[in-house]
Amino acid sequence: MIVHSVFFRLNHEAGTEAERMFLSKIAELSNIPGVENFQTLKEVSPKNSFSFGLSMEFSNQEAYDSYTAHPDHVRFVQEVWMQEVAEFQEIDYIQYHPQIQP
Amino acid sequence: MIVHSVFFRLNHEAGTEAERMFLSKIAELSNIPGVENFQTLKEVSPKNSFSFGLSMEFSNQEAYDSYTAHPDHVRFVQEVWMQEVAEFQEIDYIQYHPQIQP
Repeated sequence: MIVHSVFFRLNHEAGTEAERMFLSKIAELSNIPGVENFQTLKEVSPKNSFSFGLSMEFSNQEAYDSYTAHPDHVRFVQEVWMQEVAEFQEIDYIQYHPQIQP
Repeated sequence: MIVHSVFFRLNHEAGTEAERMFLSKIAELSNIPGVENFQTLKEVSPKNSFSFGLSMEFSNQEAYDSYTAHPDHVRFVQEVWMQEVAEFQEIDYIQYHPQIQP
């Protein structure tokens, strides 16, 4: 299971309708095949400049790659994400098991 | 429920005994009262420079603050973390519910 997470700050002011609309659109990514346990997150640490996040899980790399290449994802990135996101950080992870890794 | 996560890169080379020892020591943080669902993570995205992470959950801010101030945590940060971690990013989050938050 691979967790894909992205933390971000929007161009919109906090509490605006534009912010609410963006977060509504982002939730539609959860409909893309292979996406499991989709969550929209509110970032609450003062130790970074992000205000929101999203996380989702993929059962394997093939499902992740299929999501990345899916037309709905590509369109969202081009038409929504790149217009409305001021900065972001992607972080992907799996559970660490000392027996079988590093 | 607040998720506290930290992603980091060590001063140690990958696969070394020093790396393994650090990851063993970090797991002891899970014994501090209030820490729930502690996980050590392997960061796998090429889109950042971190190699590992940890995440834990707190039922409320009071539990989080108690963890931060706990002597075992303070000692770990001073004697292990500050010596062995090259860079890190803290990210904390809660689930976003559009009904009750912007």
